[in-house]
Amino acid sequence: MTKENYTAQVLQYIPVFYIIWSDDLLSASEINVVENAISEDNTLSNEDKKQLKAWMDVKNPPKNELFKTWKQLIINSSVKLVEHETFPLTAFSQKVASYYHGEISFNNQIKKIEINLGIQPNHYNHLFEVHIDLEKKSLQYSPKTIDSILKGKHAETIDSFRAILNDPIFSWEVRRNKEEFRNHVLKQVEFLADSGYGAMAYPKEYGGTNDMEGYATIFENMMWADGSLAIKFGVQFGLFGGSIQKLGTKKHHDKYLNATGKAELLGCFAMTETGHGSNVRGIKTTATYNKKTETIVIHTPGKNDNKEYIGNAIHSKMASVFAQLIINGKNEGVHAILVPLRNEKHELLPGITVEDNGYKLGLNGVDNGKIWFNQVEVPKENLLNKYGTILGNGDYYSEIKNPNKRFFTMLGTLVGGRICVARAGLGGAKYALTVAIKHSLKRRQFNDSVKIQEDLLMDYPSHQLRLTPLVASAYVYHITLDKMMKLYCDESQPDKRQVETQVAGLKSIITWYANDAIQECREACGGKGYLLENRIADLKGDVDIFTTFEGDNNVLLQLAAKGVLSDFKAEFNSAGFSTVLKLLSSQLSDKLSTINPLYTNKTDKDHLYNPKFHIHAFEHRTRRLTYTIAMRIRGYIKKGIPSYQAFLKVQTHLMTLGKAYSTELAYKSFIEHNSTITDPEYKALFEKIGTLYALYEIRKDASWYLEQGYISGTKSKAIRQRVERLCTELRPHLNSLVDGFGIPEHLMTAPIAN
Amino acid sequence: MTKENYTAQVLQYIPVFYIIWSDDLLSASEINVVENAISEDNTLSNEDKKQLKAWMDVKNPPKNELFKTWKQLIINSSVKLVEHETFPLTAFSQKVASYYHGEISFNNQIKKIEINLGIQPNHYNHLFEVHIDLEKKSLQYSPKTIDSILKGKHAETIDSFRAILNDPIFSWEVRRNKEEFRNHVLKQVEFLADSGYGAMAYPKEYGGTNDMEGYATIFENMMWADGSLAIKFGVQFGLFGGSIQKLGTKKHHDKYLNATGKAELLGCFAMTETGHGSNVRGIKTTATYNKKTETIVIHTPGKNDNKEYIGNAIHSKMASVFAQLIINGKNEGVHAILVPLRNEKHELLPGITVEDNGYKLGLNGVDNGKIWFNQVEVPKENLLNKYGTILGNGDYYSEIKNPNKRFFTMLGTLVGGRICVARAGLGGAKYALTVAIKHSLKRRQFNDSVKIQEDLLMDYPSHQLRLTPLVASAYVYHITLDKMMKLYCDESQPDKRQVETQVAGLKSIITWYANDAIQECREACGGKGYLLENRIADLKGDVDIFTTFEGDNNVLLQLAAKGVLSDFKAEFNSAGFSTVLKLLSSQLSDKLSTINPLYTNKTDKDHLYNPKFHIHAFEHRTRRLTYTIAMRIRGYIKKGIPSYQAFLKVQTHLMTLGKAYSTELAYKSFIEHNSTITDPEYKALFEKIGTLYALYEIRKDASWYLEQGYISGTKSKAIRQRVERLCTELRPHLNSLVDGFGIPEHLMTAPIAN
Repeated sequence: MTKENYTAQVLQYIPVFYIIWSDDLLSASEINVVENAISEDNTLSNEDKKQLKAWMDVKNPPKNELFKTWKQLIINSSVKLVEHETFPLTAFSQKVASYYHGEISFNNQIKKIEINLGIQPNHYNHLFEVHIDLEKKSLQYSPKTIDSILKGKHAETIDSFRAILNDPIFSWEVRRNKEEFRNHVLKQVEFLADSGYGAMAYPKEYGGTNDMEGYATIFENMMWADGSLAIKFGVQFGLFGGSIQKLGTKKHHDKYLNATGKAELLGCFAMTETGHGSNVRGIKTTATYNKKTETIVIHTPGKNDNKEYIGNAIHSKMASVFAQLIINGKNEGVHAILVPLRNEKHELLPGITVEDNGYKLGLNGVDNGKIWFNQVEVPKENLLNKYGTILGNGDYYSEIKNPNKRFFTMLGTLVGGRICVARAGLGGAKYALTVAIKHSLKRRQFNDSVKIQEDLLMDYPSHQLRLTPLVASAYVYHITLDKMMKLYCDESQPDKRQVETQVAGLKSIITWYANDAIQECREACGGKGYLLENRIADLKGDVDIFTTFEGDNNVLLQLAAKGVLSDFKAEFNSAGFSTVLKLLSSQLSDKLSTINPLYTNKTDKDHLYNPKFHIHAFEHRTRRLTYTIAMRIRGYIKKGIPSYQAFLKVQTHLMTLGKAYSTELAYKSFIEHNSTITDPEYKALFEKIGTLYALYEIRKDASWYLEQGYISGTKSKAIRQRVERLCTELRPHLNSLVDGFGIPEHLMTAPIAN
Repeated sequence: MTKENYTAQVLQYIPVFYIIWSDDLLSASEINVVENAISEDNTLSNEDKKQLKAWMDVKNPPKNELFKTWKQLIINSSVKLVEHETFPLTAFSQKVASYYHGEISFNNQIKKIEINLGIQPNHYNHLFEVHIDLEKKSLQYSPKTIDSILKGKHAETIDSFRAILNDPIFSWEVRRNKEEFRNHVLKQVEFLADSGYGAMAYPKEYGGTNDMEGYATIFENMMWADGSLAIKFGVQFGLFGGSIQKLGTKKHHDKYLNATGKAELLGCFAMTETGHGSNVRGIKTTATYNKKTETIVIHTPGKNDNKEYIGNAIHSKMASVFAQLIINGKNEGVHAILVPLRNEKHELLPGITVEDNGYKLGLNGVDNGKIWFNQVEVPKENLLNKYGTILGNGDYYSEIKNPNKRFFTMLGTLVGGRICVARAGLGGAKYALTVAIKHSLKRRQFNDSVKIQEDLLMDYPSHQLRLTPLVASAYVYHITLDKMMKLYCDESQPDKRQVETQVAGLKSIITWYANDAIQECREACGGKGYLLENRIADLKGDVDIFTTFEGDNNVLLQLAAKGVLSDFKAEFNSAGFSTVLKLLSSQLSDKLSTINPLYTNKTDKDHLYNPKFHIHAFEHRTRRLTYTIAMRIRGYIKKGIPSYQAFLKVQTHLMTLGKAYSTELAYKSFIEHNSTITDPEYKALFEKIGTLYALYEIRKDASWYLEQGYISGTKSKAIRQRVERLCTELRPHLNSLVDGFGIPEHLMTAPIAN
């Protein structure tokens, strides 16, 4: 079959016929439109019209052989479909006909068909070879390489864990009934324990690999399977197991740690009380030592003093209970005691009451409950006695004499959990961003009124601006959290006050970021983002509470700020202010440099893209905020206002400092890591990501920088423009950047992302 | 029984004994603590100690008679408990003893008991008369009066509707299974229809009261019962019924409107398609007129051209289908056609496929589904033909010749729905704020280390700052939406372009506000906010999609901005730019006034609290943004960049303008309304609310004002301080302000709010 069979004019119609016959039956309206166009086409001879109309006969459609010759004709022309042309089908037809017959003009009747049938390239682009516009989706960067950079030394651990998540037990589906959901998540947790992941952070002699850093990375990956899984896993192995590991001594490890890591002993971490959420030191549960019987009596004194929101409460056999330890009538402060909750038959033991917390906004696969203790007696050996113990003579003994210090040393065990919560939030954000960006690279809405093809969502500047800085932030926070966990696990640095305080601030900004990112993705996907099947909705519900648990963000930010004020010499988590006040008088006054007006007005690209500028801006903000808070507090104290009241008065100021410091810390960690990337091309990519993060953050707080005169109005506008520009520059790489998160295909189940 | 029976020293212990014996049995630890204190109390004689220790005998507890005499002693003293004292119980005891024996000193052993038993006033304040601190919860303003101001002329309608919501059918409970939930919501909708609320907005002859304004107010109140109820109600009566009422003619009204208002005919509004969310003009469903049979054939041409997310799709008998109307081979644009979906037995009719959309993030009581049509034939009478009809000879006829104008006239029917969606979002925000504030007025966390009582959440400055401006905004938006609905319903003003465009912008900022407010409330309630029983979680899930449906917020903001650019002379919703471009050249250049440097630096209270300043700031921002966009677009056009591209380039700028204009509009509406309040005290309260809103909004955009040199750094800081100060000033009235929303007790089911 060659061109000789058809006139140029008829040939030009063939792609149209090819499309309409490759589909279902022609509808009445389609026939109508095509027949009208043919009738009105002056370029066609009567013979041509006759031939074309013959192909419209629904009762006698073109034979398969004929259809195949059309296909061959199109293929032989090697013409490619250019989707973004104004009338892609008419242009394509013109090119095919021109290939065989030489230059032929644009056919307005075919254009009319294209318009009136409203057929867009996404209806038929599977039929033709498509011209790939490299600008739209660059392959310059390999997602695998990016993923390797993110995985770092944990590549092997992460890869095998991702493979494990391919087991059918992790396949995602809607689970509405909490009992069914919880039982399924329990099975998943047991499955992971069987595979050795439960004990991962424990010492080798208890079945682990002593790999807390690796544990944090798989914890993040777990979010991609399900949020409830990650949290229940964290409660069982991180909180319950972690309390035994870190607050207990060898006898506890020997007795419980193996079974805990294998999920044979299920346990919960009973700290929070209904009446006392953030104020752990104020919990009311008592643990009174009875010298005669050598037992400890656990008791819930008042109506609101029950343990609240305890994960794993319904499935657990045992709880690690935090209570005021009272010995010889003296309160020795909060300690943890192991309390059996249920017998082998899973019946509650005497004196113990457990109530289901019921349905929640998310995490319905986690069995949260309330627990009451009514004079429950346990042997004194059940006291997790690493930092405080009961001697043979019934006296209390601790190596840490200062009760405050003792308390905060114990709480330090929560810090690993805080890093993990931030990582889990980050994992949720990465997943949502991947879904939203993949959707935006397929979904089209609106167009120039003369154009057939609608525009990709991702090509709208507003869409780029809403998603790209969030992708950049995910990279920055990933690197930051990796580093914090490394510092936290570094045994050569026993004093963890600084890293604990830093983590408090980072957990806050990162979990807030995660919520904002997921929300933005939900909206960016429109109604599709609202359907559970696309996974963003569940992530939103699950990650929401991360801003509250393992420390309320507002409280943590104030801790971080107090750390900065005292140069990290205050006790971690301390509500006392004396250390801070002591240090305030000796510091800071000389740290502030004045700003050169030339600098304030500098708007050239080299300057704005230079990490030195970003670091200077972040450091300046932290210093200035620290200085002004210190001055305010000093002023209040001089007026005789008690320090507690003085700190209340600067509360919002403290939170601003907490955020500012955490952002500085994150950016510096990222920049430091960039210097380890060897491939210059990828280094440049990561530098661009860092620049976008930095300018975006400076931009968010532009009012502060402007107020201070640190930047001029012109510079502020220049920064805003650069943020938009950077988003556009990263547009071709967005697909690689989200693929670089390394979410395996078997977990990316959202239909709109596929 | 008089003081003679006890020494002053013993008497001082009586309140302690009264508390510990009024509770359950004393625990071992409590006995221990009290006995130690008594032993070490030097103020007690041996006789005293003997008497007190006798009262500690668990086996022989004080008799009821004795207990009653204690009570009488305390009552007779008339001493009140002051909860915020550092050691409220010890101070109370001191006062009681002093009443009978004259000045007696503070007892340090009782203080020790108070500390070591950790008993806080909330454990025992039900036992004593409590000193109400007027500062904490002012009764200056009556919630009823505030509510009356908000209800305005709709008081009667609203009050009887609130009473109706007391029917047990509206009692809230967790409903996880979508089928059950949907069936229950259907019953609620039918119940309201039976009570006459379905037809409310229809003319009297069809069972209604022609009261669209009242309809909007009850729609908001419905959110307090359940979000799914409000949305399903809106779909049935507002969208489906509204399309018949507003796009149909008398024959349609006569045939369908009565049954629709009574919910005897259930219907859905089938506009959105999977492939075409926001771009309604680009929908693909065809409605082809067949002249011979005088029927219209409805057809879904491609895989992604099905109707998507259609509320009521599972329960409906009929759909109002939006499709491209093709007559004689010519596309006449989008029209609505009534298409029966199911027969009397609720079986789908031939050619119709419906698929459940499945579970969503929220609104699971609404039956959303997808609908496909395969050559479905309906009589030509089913065309809702108010704006375009098929004549007897089979030709198309419309009085509106311009197809664009015709399209946007039809879409205008959506505008009432947009106001309702914004109101529903506002209702959700009011509910969440009420829960969060009532919780914060009871919940205590942390304290000064020397103090027993912890501080109320609501007394933390950060907590005031996070919630109070949101309460103020609720007031401003309430008044604004009332006004917009009034304008929309005003039949003396037939040209609705301006109000339509204004509503587009307001719907965006208000639904975003609602989501932010609900999120802030969730976090402010900590873990309690995460439990479904406290209602915030469901509101969060339900209100989330309001940013997307009835017009995506980002798209609507751009429409609003184009309206401002063209001085509301452009077609509503128009994607075309010609009107805008035409107007751009003739305007604006002279509207900008220069700013007096004195003004830029003015920071006195009178100035900052003056509505003239706020209005000036808002107007200046709108004008300036309008001018700079116009300049940018003109510049692009001059360079030969097509207008579509030019508008894309200023997209984020347009959205900024859309927000700025909407905020200005809301504030002005509020201020205008304040002048109608006659009671000077309430007028002052509303003025303060307005001031907080204005300064908060200016503060949010401080970077812009600083960049422009409209305010100086000093003024910016002063505004920030004023926002914090206003929050503190409103602190005593917060309880009245949330009660003023008028949420009836029977709907305020959140345990933490009671």
